[in-house]
Amino acid sequence: MAQQADFDKLANLERPHKSMINIMPLQTGSILTDAARRALVEFGDGYSVCDFCQGRLTGIANPPVNKFVGEMLPEFLGCDEATLTYGARDGIFMVFHAMAKPGDVVVVDANRHYSTAVAAERAGLEVVAVPRSDYPEYVVDVEAYAAVVKERKPALIMVTYPDGKYGNVPDAARIGEIAMEAGVPFLINGAYAVGRMPVKMDALHADFLVGSGHKSMASAGPSGVLGMKAKWHDVVLRPSVESKKKEVECLGCTVRGVPLATLMASFPEVRERVNRWDEQVTKAQWFATSMEELGFSLIGEKPHKHDLMDFETPAFYEISQRVRERGYFLYKELKERGIWGIQPGQTKALKVSTFAASQEELGKVLTAFKEIIDKYR
Amino acid sequence: MAQQADFDKLANLERPHKSMINIMPLQTGSILTDAARRALVEFGDGYSVCDFCQGRLTGIANPPVNKFVGEMLPEFLGCDEATLTYGARDGIFMVFHAMAKPGDVVVVDANRHYSTAVAAERAGLEVVAVPRSDYPEYVVDVEAYAAVVKERKPALIMVTYPDGKYGNVPDAARIGEIAMEAGVPFLINGAYAVGRMPVKMDALHADFLVGSGHKSMASAGPSGVLGMKAKWHDVVLRPSVESKKKEVECLGCTVRGVPLATLMASFPEVRERVNRWDEQVTKAQWFATSMEELGFSLIGEKPHKHDLMDFETPAFYEISQRVRERGYFLYKELKERGIWGIQPGQTKALKVSTFAASQEELGKVLTAFKEIIDKYR
Repeated sequence: MAQQADFDKLANLERPHKSMINIMPLQTGSILTDAARRALVEFGDGYSVCDFCQGRLTGIANPPVNKFVGEMLPEFLGCDEATLTYGARDGIFMVFHAMAKPGDVVVVDANRHYSTAVAAERAGLEVVAVPRSDYPEYVVDVEAYAAVVKERKPALIMVTYPDGKYGNVPDAARIGEIAMEAGVPFLINGAYAVGRMPVKMDALHADFLVGSGHKSMASAGPSGVLGMKAKWHDVVLRPSVESKKKEVECLGCTVRGVPLATLMASFPEVRERVNRWDEQVTKAQWFATSMEELGFSLIGEKPHKHDLMDFETPAFYEISQRVRERGYFLYKELKERGIWGIQPGQTKALKVSTFAASQEELGKVLTAFKEIIDKYR
Repeated sequence: MAQQADFDKLANLERPHKSMINIMPLQTGSILTDAARRALVEFGDGYSVCDFCQGRLTGIANPPVNKFVGEMLPEFLGCDEATLTYGARDGIFMVFHAMAKPGDVVVVDANRHYSTAVAAERAGLEVVAVPRSDYPEYVVDVEAYAAVVKERKPALIMVTYPDGKYGNVPDAARIGEIAMEAGVPFLINGAYAVGRMPVKMDALHADFLVGSGHKSMASAGPSGVLGMKAKWHDVVLRPSVESKKKEVECLGCTVRGVPLATLMASFPEVRERVNRWDEQVTKAQWFATSMEELGFSLIGEKPHKHDLMDFETPAFYEISQRVRERGYFLYKELKERGIWGIQPGQTKALKVSTFAASQEELGKVLTAFKEIIDKYR
């Protein structure tokens, strides 16, 4: 049974590491902008974005949800229409549920996120994966989509762009061509792309593009976006028989609260930052090279094209086998040096994102790694 | 096309009426506590609650999501198990989708929220409504559930407790008895109950109880809770084939962000405030009587048992027919007097909640109504 002390704890929740250098892949793309931090306080109360709702979340004029969803997002995503979701997985389920029926096949890449499989399972779909290359690159064979699609006749084709484990960026435009030739709708999971790098759905020949506010759009969660071609409006955004203002796949309204305010408040900056993506890639490649100089190996594509990276770090694992704290020594050593984002206990391989940290800060991370190796040598 | 001024606007979103007396039914139960306001700032960044996640949202120990979901919520809801959702409608869809198959019938009350019909439509279910009494009380005939259930053999029985339009509180325990006798699982939509009034699922003989963080639990949205009997765990919370840590109907994880932090931070106070529900009912009844003394009529149950109320206000409608601002005069007059929550344009009938305002503040609302009538007489 919960005690009084447990309830007291709830009323005083804290994150002690807020000001640390953050390299956690889940978090680096969703650190709030100053504008979002103001919106957060302003719109904290429940249903705050609904102050002037006339019955339709995406139609609200104050705050200007209507302009954001109706004009800004389609332009940003390179699509005809957009809507709001709770996150990438929820957008994917919306598309799966609307576009396919139980028993249908969806063809995905072998690097897809677990939530893609879960969304397919919820929608009753069979997931067929296109193969990838072996260790250590794990590159998705985009040309292989053609044969799999021909054989399995899927209701939908999907790619994870990039995947969340290795940060591999597949040639989505080529998959889009294959999808067009096969006449199969094509969905891109851009959870780690939209808001970080320039992505235009139309240029990738896609029918759907999902993005994540709390992964890559400097927003509080849960929040996400879904862009689509106009021709799918009547399927995915079909109105309820009950009420013409309410979309069935959205259950009426989705993000009815503060994450929408932060998503909107950060958007002007997010829209600009994707134009500096080449600097992010340069920084990521420099970091990867520096890590390899320390004796670690980058898993995934080389040269790397994204800030998400997975490194094999056998030197840390070796240390973990002979120190009292076992695998936790690394988390502790990094925390003491103001570095946040390595899972407690992790040593064999480290998943890192260089998106939020400056080159100077990443230099401190590299120095920390070197110091730790030297300390335990 | 969106202009620079539109983007600038996004970065400076404001709610000018934050400090006003709030009587908007959607908002009065979700004004943040001070503890939640601190948690909001602390956990604003995306994926902030996932700092120490080991692969399962409801298993996170810091912040203590595991204790909150595993111990505190079940005790609070009077159920065996609980989980997190994006809101009441999402919990309802989870239950519909897990417990019924397309073509099945769900028996609901005639006062159900629109989102119940939309959730049923999304799950492919037929909604059959139990009748209610006529104008002006619109009371759900709970005894009528028995005959409808016998005739239609539903997969699920549901009641809205209370409904969001009239604030009628049906005898859910009696429906629970009927459900038990018929051997049909029973779901309670407690979006306006859980966090406002004492509700124990087991005492109401229910199988499922949904609550809404952003409607009644002093939390930012989107957030909600779902309580259930242990015997439904394997149906509604079944793990994915892909990953045993991830529940299919949750798509893995639901509220992965700040609304969970506010929900938890407010919980100690919410848990206490439901014990003062009788004061809320007394205040609501006093307000209703005072409104009737002003010549307005309460629609819905009398004596009223909830802070949600719907009043016919023909005197305001009559004014709207002869003033330049038409229906907007009332919104404007109230705003000038520091009163928030009447939809712009609304005059014929007013939906009001007395939950957040003190008796003194409600006195000011009554005085304002009287002054406005006198001014335009």
